[in-house]
Amino acid sequence: MARIAMLGAGVMGTALTYPLADNGHEVHLIGTHLDEEIIASCRATGTHPRLKRALAPGVRPFPLGELAEALAGVDVVALGVNSRGVRWAAHTLAPHLRPGLPVIMVTKGLAPGENGDLSTFPDLFDAELPASLRGAVPLAAIGGPSIAGELAARRQTAVVFTSRDAGLLAYLAPLFATSYYHIWTSTDLVGVEVCVALKNVYALGVGFVAGVLEVSGGMDGNAAMHNYAAALFAQGLTETAQLVQLLGGGIETVFSLPGAGDLYVTCQGGRNSRMGRLLGMGVDPEEASEQLAGETIEGVDAVIAIAPAVEKLIERGVLEPDALPLMRQIYAVAAKGRPVESIFERFFQPAFLKLQPVTAVSGS
Amino acid sequence: MARIAMLGAGVMGTALTYPLADNGHEVHLIGTHLDEEIIASCRATGTHPRLKRALAPGVRPFPLGELAEALAGVDVVALGVNSRGVRWAAHTLAPHLRPGLPVIMVTKGLAPGENGDLSTFPDLFDAELPASLRGAVPLAAIGGPSIAGELAARRQTAVVFTSRDAGLLAYLAPLFATSYYHIWTSTDLVGVEVCVALKNVYALGVGFVAGVLEVSGGMDGNAAMHNYAAALFAQGLTETAQLVQLLGGGIETVFSLPGAGDLYVTCQGGRNSRMGRLLGMGVDPEEASEQLAGETIEGVDAVIAIAPAVEKLIERGVLEPDALPLMRQIYAVAAKGRPVESIFERFFQPAFLKLQPVTAVSGS
Repeated sequence: MARIAMLGAGVMGTALTYPLADNGHEVHLIGTHLDEEIIASCRATGTHPRLKRALAPGVRPFPLGELAEALAGVDVVALGVNSRGVRWAAHTLAPHLRPGLPVIMVTKGLAPGENGDLSTFPDLFDAELPASLRGAVPLAAIGGPSIAGELAARRQTAVVFTSRDAGLLAYLAPLFATSYYHIWTSTDLVGVEVCVALKNVYALGVGFVAGVLEVSGGMDGNAAMHNYAAALFAQGLTETAQLVQLLGGGIETVFSLPGAGDLYVTCQGGRNSRMGRLLGMGVDPEEASEQLAGETIEGVDAVIAIAPAVEKLIERGVLEPDALPLMRQIYAVAAKGRPVESIFERFFQPAFLKLQPVTAVSGS
Repeated sequence: MARIAMLGAGVMGTALTYPLADNGHEVHLIGTHLDEEIIASCRATGTHPRLKRALAPGVRPFPLGELAEALAGVDVVALGVNSRGVRWAAHTLAPHLRPGLPVIMVTKGLAPGENGDLSTFPDLFDAELPASLRGAVPLAAIGGPSIAGELAARRQTAVVFTSRDAGLLAYLAPLFATSYYHIWTSTDLVGVEVCVALKNVYALGVGFVAGVLEVSGGMDGNAAMHNYAAALFAQGLTETAQLVQLLGGGIETVFSLPGAGDLYVTCQGGRNSRMGRLLGMGVDPEEASEQLAGETIEGVDAVIAIAPAVEKLIERGVLEPDALPLMRQIYAVAAKGRPVESIFERFFQPAFLKLQPVTAVSGS
């Protein structure tokens, strides 16, 4: 049995402690400075206030002030902070890390460089480590459809663990695998990380349709707007494939768990969908954020990080001028408050799709 | 403007008459022997009883008895019969067809040969024509996310028209394209047709989860089973990719409109989902069919046609012994009344996925 620390006591970080605890590991759940109330509540009641579920037996909650104690002698560090916290986590953990101590991340996103280059979060984490540790901390990440509340309820869940180091995956994955937490491993780190970062963006976009439906007068007879949502879903997956290929990932990752599976589950509700609906109704982004007070909308954070980098890649000629139209619309809506417009004529353009667009002849 | 006949007055065939009529074409909607009441109602009231919507202006309904009149002088024949009706349609239409008169099909499915080979419906249709017409009737098909009621309501819809003949597509697609019916063309006939046939099968499988959730006691706190459904969605798309590749289609078709898009929309409700839920609850297939009386469940028809062919392909060594486990489970449940069981350990195996399965070490 291993001793494993999870930094980040939000719903996803905490959910991952269930399979670990069920496997008999010693699990330390460490709150960030954002999680003080959560940890206090866990200690007082044994129940996670946002998951609304008792911690798994044996999971020990620690506030950030007890970080050194919580990390002492651990075999693995897991990272469940939000997408804004990766640099902070690298700096905070660094004094307690050592060469060879693995870090596995569930935080999703891509980090833009000044010239528009995009890094995976494991690569960002590594770059933020002190020189003595850089390249020496084995890094892995988790992707695939995994709603936290369902994992904590020990619902059937299937995910992919990824790292460039197959040996690391062979060590890490069995620590987490249970009869309800099914794991496959992939060395396509870039493919997995691009997929899981973009699924939040495109789930936000698919969510627009619910809002468009409302302001257009709602259902027409029994006709919703699932066709429209499905077109956005497919365009989102197509753009994901394009970015995966550009960054050197594998296309097969897009149509399995990390791409199609994770985008599907993210469109089944949750914060991105709720935010998308408000934006699709034409609610100003700031006002929409207030209506969802206190919730991090990962899709908004991700598109604000990634879309400007995409513009730079287009300026540099790395991407075509008409590339990724849906991501750029989602940015315009979510960051600039623009209305959702029909841009079907810009969809499904990448040459690898081998599709030819057809324009309506009449004006109807 | 063209004169276009649609054979099959069900919801999908009729829905396609809206963009055609909006483009000013002369549209003849011909009922099959199953559509006598529909055509009578359309003639009496101008309203399609299942779409619950007025026919588009200028669409003329015909009963099958007036087939010759309805087909006189047409420029295009469209085929909207159900998947059991392709052979019948070829035989019924043949006396009225001529070399060069295009037929475009919206009927979805794959036809098994005796040795397990699978044909697309356009190829089946062609093979059923008399020798004088075989190979001489230009054939195309439509795939992609398109709920009939939404298309009839002129909701934004994006689809792919496919044929091996790019020139035919260049003629046909503009007849249908409108400001709400967005069309791309693809010469990957096999890829598109495999995707649209299998989406009904896998939507049935994804639908199981709603039933499993119910019999397992329903929601646990706020935890549904979306993770489980998403895993089935991803496995379904993976199996689709495997069969597309086997039959010579293009993988890019799987992660765009015909594959991911159409599977997504089919999982948003409808007959396959309702049937899947009943089967997931453990209801006997015959009893479940009765509960959904009068509705064709395309996913059931498709899996009963395709899964036995897959077993033959496995016997012949064309597919690996562990291939397509989800399709085979769906067949066992939908055709044999077996219970839905967890078969995660058999998922995501094809070598092209580059995933390694991880087995739980403990018994938990």
